[in-house]
Amino acid sequence: MPTFLFQISYEGTAYCGWQVQPNGPSIQQTIEDALDRVTQQRVRITGSGRTDAGVHAIRQFANCQLNTALSTNVLQNALNGNLPADIRITDVQIVPDTFHAIRDAVQKTYRYQIVDAKIHDIFFRHYAWHVHQPLDCNAMRTASQQLVGTHDFASFQSAGSERKSTTRTVFRLNVERDESNRQLILIEVTANGFLYNMVRNIVGTLVEIGKQRQSVQWMMEVLSAMDRRAAGPTAPAHGLFLVDVVYPPFCQRSFSGPDVEVE
Amino acid sequence: MPTFLFQISYEGTAYCGWQVQPNGPSIQQTIEDALDRVTQQRVRITGSGRTDAGVHAIRQFANCQLNTALSTNVLQNALNGNLPADIRITDVQIVPDTFHAIRDAVQKTYRYQIVDAKIHDIFFRHYAWHVHQPLDCNAMRTASQQLVGTHDFASFQSAGSERKSTTRTVFRLNVERDESNRQLILIEVTANGFLYNMVRNIVGTLVEIGKQRQSVQWMMEVLSAMDRRAAGPTAPAHGLFLVDVVYPPFCQRSFSGPDVEVE
Repeated sequence: MPTFLFQISYEGTAYCGWQVQPNGPSIQQTIEDALDRVTQQRVRITGSGRTDAGVHAIRQFANCQLNTALSTNVLQNALNGNLPADIRITDVQIVPDTFHAIRDAVQKTYRYQIVDAKIHDIFFRHYAWHVHQPLDCNAMRTASQQLVGTHDFASFQSAGSERKSTTRTVFRLNVERDESNRQLILIEVTANGFLYNMVRNIVGTLVEIGKQRQSVQWMMEVLSAMDRRAAGPTAPAHGLFLVDVVYPPFCQRSFSGPDVEVE
Repeated sequence: MPTFLFQISYEGTAYCGWQVQPNGPSIQQTIEDALDRVTQQRVRITGSGRTDAGVHAIRQFANCQLNTALSTNVLQNALNGNLPADIRITDVQIVPDTFHAIRDAVQKTYRYQIVDAKIHDIFFRHYAWHVHQPLDCNAMRTASQQLVGTHDFASFQSAGSERKSTTRTVFRLNVERDESNRQLILIEVTANGFLYNMVRNIVGTLVEIGKQRQSVQWMMEVLSAMDRRAAGPTAPAHGLFLVDVVYPPFCQRSFSGPDVEVE
């Protein structure tokens, strides 16, 4: 049975998160149901990572084995025809059977959006945290640079899904106002991996600095404390987007025959 | 009784349009209901113009007379507390009693959004027309410039709400790909007034040219025909945003006392 890799985009607003849960529809379950309808196979898909309720994905990845004669193109179209409008399969590939969406991920990028304005921008009500007071974006940017590099990010890990090691490498952390919408602050973080709620805890900490409740230097204190209680609050889920996951080139080598069309 | 001018932002997805109608909730009705709850007055508000079902507004304006001791700030907050999350009052002013939101409007700007990609961007599913094939944005831009200036736009007027004169002046018509999202085409039109469905009919015509079904020169034929049947189809409502309405400065002079705070 070939292993399929799905590239997925979703709006998390209506879901209890990625993972199958008893308290509402999950993204994973909804996709597995569509796979069942299209291929008559009840499979479990492996996502590159979970996302919490309300968190969105521009590019999430998930894999599973399927016994199907459908080409990747036909499978993609059939799945999209069986999915609600807030979940789209944006690409399908056949990958080596050894591929694993969690284990093989070498880099992930998340974006967090904040609207700092008296009145919330209604078009961002599901896509950005509304902070009622103006934030000092420059202070947030300066503070954020202290997190770039390899550090123990224990201060930024929420309870509930602890990892063995809390050391991660942040390759890039960008904090800037959107060029065309000056009420919108975009925070992008690229790392080799993330602890549970790491981005939301970094953002909650940066906002304390942006509100000038804490100094730029406070970020270093928080980081070195290696204690969740030292950091700011967890920013709300609905401002968070999984933007991309990078896999080594060999993982995505296509084993496809002539039925796999690329557009 | 002072005359109040409300600046309003709304997402049109859940509404039957601006105007009170029997077939569903309207923006106008929803705001009038909130005004009733806040001021115990059942008033009719006058919008700068109607928007159809699914059309959004970044800045719409409406006025009415109200007998209230509330300051503009308090009134704004109380209204927002009584409105659903997809309608926000973004500003309240007191204006001269002679003010009229339709008659005094000297300029309006609309934006239309198109995603030209094989798979729709789910985050734009309520905010952009999904055209499945790539569009020639340069051809659309060149063609659009033939509409700038004072012309008889009869070819771009839908039946159902005919105006006495079909001559309007288009000050600016911009067609461009979004810098940070190359699948998104933004069309902005500023004019001294618009005929019914004029922007959506212009966009439907531009898309025929973008698909290379028609030449750039065809736009001039359409314009000079002064016949709706000569133009392209009406683009769907959900890609359209009322961006701004301009009133002469005297209309917005504030008669406010010290209770009107400006932040």
